[in-house]
Amino acid sequence: MSEVNIMDNEVDIVIGALQSDLTSFMNEWRPVFIRYHLIIVKDPDLKEELQIPEGFNLDVYSKSDIDRVVGSSKSILFSGFSCRYFGYLVSRKKYIISIDDDCVPARDDKGILVDAAAEHISNLATPATPYFFNTLYDPYREGADFVRGYPFSLRSGVTCALSCGLWLNLADFDAPTQALKPGQRNSRYVDAVMTVPARAFMPMSGINIAFDREAVGPALFPALRLAGEGKLRWETMEDIWSGMCVKVVCDHLGLGVKTGLPYVWRKDRGNAVETLKKEWEGVKQMEEVVPFFQSVRMPQTATTAEQCVVEMATRVKEQLGSVDTGFTRAAEAMIEWLKLWKAVGSSSSVPGV
Amino acid sequence: MSEVNIMDNEVDIVIGALQSDLTSFMNEWRPVFIRYHLIIVKDPDLKEELQIPEGFNLDVYSKSDIDRVVGSSKSILFSGFSCRYFGYLVSRKKYIISIDDDCVPARDDKGILVDAAAEHISNLATPATPYFFNTLYDPYREGADFVRGYPFSLRSGVTCALSCGLWLNLADFDAPTQALKPGQRNSRYVDAVMTVPARAFMPMSGINIAFDREAVGPALFPALRLAGEGKLRWETMEDIWSGMCVKVVCDHLGLGVKTGLPYVWRKDRGNAVETLKKEWEGVKQMEEVVPFFQSVRMPQTATTAEQCVVEMATRVKEQLGSVDTGFTRAAEAMIEWLKLWKAVGSSSSVPGV
Repeated sequence: MSEVNIMDNEVDIVIGALQSDLTSFMNEWRPVFIRYHLIIVKDPDLKEELQIPEGFNLDVYSKSDIDRVVGSSKSILFSGFSCRYFGYLVSRKKYIISIDDDCVPARDDKGILVDAAAEHISNLATPATPYFFNTLYDPYREGADFVRGYPFSLRSGVTCALSCGLWLNLADFDAPTQALKPGQRNSRYVDAVMTVPARAFMPMSGINIAFDREAVGPALFPALRLAGEGKLRWETMEDIWSGMCVKVVCDHLGLGVKTGLPYVWRKDRGNAVETLKKEWEGVKQMEEVVPFFQSVRMPQTATTAEQCVVEMATRVKEQLGSVDTGFTRAAEAMIEWLKLWKAVGSSSSVPGV
Repeated sequence: MSEVNIMDNEVDIVIGALQSDLTSFMNEWRPVFIRYHLIIVKDPDLKEELQIPEGFNLDVYSKSDIDRVVGSSKSILFSGFSCRYFGYLVSRKKYIISIDDDCVPARDDKGILVDAAAEHISNLATPATPYFFNTLYDPYREGADFVRGYPFSLRSGVTCALSCGLWLNLADFDAPTQALKPGQRNSRYVDAVMTVPARAFMPMSGINIAFDREAVGPALFPALRLAGEGKLRWETMEDIWSGMCVKVVCDHLGLGVKTGLPYVWRKDRGNAVETLKKEWEGVKQMEEVVPFFQSVRMPQTATTAEQCVVEMATRVKEQLGSVDTGFTRAAEAMIEWLKLWKAVGSSSSVPGV
């Protein structure tokens, strides 16, 4: 593929609001957000009214909207961090950028404010190279190229469908790591973007991502819900699970996943030691999740993300269902998501809500 | 695995001398090289006497040594960039670091001189994580860790057998890229080390590498020689080919490969446009080489690097021999290398020369 041109009006920025006062969050992001249409989804568990400063082009969705659109669905809950997925459902744009509401713009290694949206869009607009590893990182960045030995036939790359950004300050560690190293903060700004190779899996963090909604939106869902799921990132796994699914889809459909830039600055939030009192359910589940996704294969008949999700849900139920009922529920939620995606008309670009 | 402690006397730094006057090269590297034993192998095509400043602990090998040790071998030529491999053969140390003689120490993003040897050793001394991708790069570096979702069972990692460093200033591009962008220089210092995932292949550049000689030395050989091979890096492929072999070995034996740091500063050298007048044989060959290595599988009976190389040589001859006689010669050279490795006693730590 060659580079594509992504227009501002092809992008929705989706924010899941877990806190009611978004004033400082929105104001800090103003220079970045001002160019795009925003979808703000209020956590249905949040009682207080949202406070949003003026001057943005945005739509706000709350519990009543979710109830109206999703109706009687019991398999999927759009509460907590999962509320953002409602935004993915009602968006009609080709691309989505989503950033947690406890993050603000980061500064790069030269002290310049990072335009996270522009960097995500650049990742999605240039090809990914999943079939051979380029040691000088993303060959499409300015000043970079393919190194000696890189096959010319692979240099055109494939469409990038998912861009995973990172975090300065409070990194996305799990609860045990956070509790063991309460003072640890990430201060290393690594100026690199790279393609995650085909068949390699990464733990996708939903904190700071962008994706091609038309291509892989059907695989970005809040399917795996922990029994003790809370309102802190380290108490959730829905994004990690969805990231494994979307990587299977990308590998099967010949799409690419990039990771690295942009960084966001993640503010301190929550008490990891408190979280440790809960069960480490997510940590245990990954021991089953990773081997499953590493070995699952899609049939050649699956040619869309929707079809891949159907196939995966079947295999999850068959192979993981006996291990943990949470996986059975995840499989049901995946199928439910596809029904919603169709019912809401998410695959079309004509508003269906 | 846990971290291992690597002593200075377990390391040989091997330099292939393609230029006779090593004075400035050695002096620039003095603060780094001074702690280690050096093996300098003079390109047998080089007529002038080597000029090496005093004050180093080193052994120099020249054409007469090569002739004496290698004897009547016709399959392997130790000329040009391949001369360094003679150093790999006669070394009795567990680890080798090898750096091209047109490179000098780089400065990091804070302007501090990079100790390339220390960084290579750190890469080899800490585990690699080939079975799952850590988005915050090498989790064993200071200030880093495994991110949320990384399975705990995979956090002990595997032994790292190969460390691939990078280049500032003149990057390791191929002749067409260098000729198309004669002014392009790499100025991006990326402060990251990462494991190349299992089953993913990278083009290993021999300019700046380190490896566990005992574990993978039998797979680091000058086997693929281009018909028009010259004295410029972009006119060679022997390291790329060997890198594909060593990655197959590592994946099969459960060893890891890291890439990223250290950087070296690579001085300008050669005229890429002149090189373009030659045939782009190496560029064409990679189109066959990559699919072959991506699909080749080692039998369970192969439990050492030596056995893997035997298996690979057989498959190269069978599957690539009909494409290009250069591949048949490469297969023969691989078998010849194993013979030399045994004859010279390279697998033991008792000098056999």
